[in-house]
Amino acid sequence: MSDYAIGVDLGGTNLRAAAVSRDGKMLNKVSGSTPGGAGRAAVIGDIVNAIETLQAGLPGQTLAGVGVGVPGFILMDQGIVVGAPNLPAFDNYPVRDEIEKLLGAKVILENDANAAALGEKWIGAGRDVNDLILLTLGTGIGSGIIVEGKVLRGYLGMAAEIGHTTYSPNGYPCGCGNTGCVEKYASATAVSSMARLLNLGPDLSSEEVFHLAKGGNPRALQIFDSVGLALGTLLATLINTFNFPLYLLGGGMTAAWELFEPSMRAEASRRSFIYRNNPPRIERTGLGADAGLYGAAYLPFQA
Amino acid sequence: MSDYAIGVDLGGTNLRAAAVSRDGKMLNKVSGSTPGGAGRAAVIGDIVNAIETLQAGLPGQTLAGVGVGVPGFILMDQGIVVGAPNLPAFDNYPVRDEIEKLLGAKVILENDANAAALGEKWIGAGRDVNDLILLTLGTGIGSGIIVEGKVLRGYLGMAAEIGHTTYSPNGYPCGCGNTGCVEKYASATAVSSMARLLNLGPDLSSEEVFHLAKGGNPRALQIFDSVGLALGTLLATLINTFNFPLYLLGGGMTAAWELFEPSMRAEASRRSFIYRNNPPRIERTGLGADAGLYGAAYLPFQA
Repeated sequence: MSDYAIGVDLGGTNLRAAAVSRDGKMLNKVSGSTPGGAGRAAVIGDIVNAIETLQAGLPGQTLAGVGVGVPGFILMDQGIVVGAPNLPAFDNYPVRDEIEKLLGAKVILENDANAAALGEKWIGAGRDVNDLILLTLGTGIGSGIIVEGKVLRGYLGMAAEIGHTTYSPNGYPCGCGNTGCVEKYASATAVSSMARLLNLGPDLSSEEVFHLAKGGNPRALQIFDSVGLALGTLLATLINTFNFPLYLLGGGMTAAWELFEPSMRAEASRRSFIYRNNPPRIERTGLGADAGLYGAAYLPFQA
Repeated sequence: MSDYAIGVDLGGTNLRAAAVSRDGKMLNKVSGSTPGGAGRAAVIGDIVNAIETLQAGLPGQTLAGVGVGVPGFILMDQGIVVGAPNLPAFDNYPVRDEIEKLLGAKVILENDANAAALGEKWIGAGRDVNDLILLTLGTGIGSGIIVEGKVLRGYLGMAAEIGHTTYSPNGYPCGCGNTGCVEKYASATAVSSMARLLNLGPDLSSEEVFHLAKGGNPRALQIFDSVGLALGTLLATLINTFNFPLYLLGGGMTAAWELFEPSMRAEASRRSFIYRNNPPRIERTGLGADAGLYGAAYLPFQA
């Protein structure tokens, strides 16, 4: 079939959209121009513009539908986004129906981390398995869980808040109200925070800490070792809980993969007898930042 | 339809079997006489005897199949049990095929904790939901995960080893090789161990500690408070990860429910923003020790 779907990745700071064929080829990609923090109408106009631009470039082909990845919880039945701190104007607003009305095409919303996991399953590093977990190491730790090829959403669409797994029971406070969430120890933000604690610099990005570590700075190396311990502990729990064949790590932090991989694997091995006896794959993502676009585009095909 | 299935619960110390109708009525129940630790042939003979006794009591009715709950990992395709410390003679032995041969009926194996979770979903406390997690607090913490009505098995049948979630990263050693597994803090064994540490007695059962606590002993009360903290931390992680509508606790320890429930709920609330905003059900099991029998019997109906 020569039909295609459009995936939209609506971030807090920008918007990207792509037309993807049923066999997973990206046909075209565009970027929006309106910041996600702008007014509701402006952002929705931007989404519709991007989609219409992609449609105009594919005359004679059939649009199977549109998937939109959004950083928030999706109430699937109602097509509503809740709890999206980067898109406050969308809270409890019928985004799906509004876009459908303007566009005349079927729209499916999905949480952006779930969409990325689905993209990896469809044509990324997870294309050969039916079950996987994706962890995206960024400002926090985003995650998506795929069970038998489908997103595990939970009964309220709030599943896969894996970044808020308790890692250090009396550790650092988290905005979620807990203390010691693993994202306070293994995200890009955590790397910057540790750099400050170790007097490497008051305001280093995780990338700058990475370059220091590559240059042999022992404290910077210690930071990524520590990141690996946190990730290894988390992975051990996930491996013991899910027994999935594949765990993927994505996000900018994975540039430092070789620095945290040794302690991550050693800790996962020490803490999980399943890992020791039957090691699953623990790998970097295959699609990088495009995973969410592919996954969003896959939603109409899967529906 | 007037057919029935037989569920078998093969424990390390005894064997129970029940005939259950398609609508979930237990028609008859028998117990075996051979200890699980006896030789392979003796145990299999005992299983077959129990099944034939149940069949003889239901003349003219059709046996839909037999489900057997086993304390070990099941290689589903091969019908083999591995890693069952209480049934060493069964390791890598084709149990399923042997029973099928002797019986002339279809047999399905399942891990006993998974079978119990499935039983609760079928006609227990989880009959109104499609997704649940069961934690059985006993010698260790057994668990089963039900996703969309089916057991989450993992690609090697090893999923739901939730008792080995890291709760106290540098805590007590566990037989699995990890340190600080939650079952070292919230099982019946953990209660006995804490009683010793608090000088309540060198060899008290969790039931005896429960009675001390009911009588107002402050150290015994402290123990169940501590159990609740561990369970609440675990539940917070599960709630954040799965966003399921129901988490069930079973096993003898739940006799002390009112003693650990307050700290358990407070800790789950403190550690999970999802619990605080959208509290799922956290309840005791509905079927008690029979959950595994019902779940095993359900396997042929579900197949």
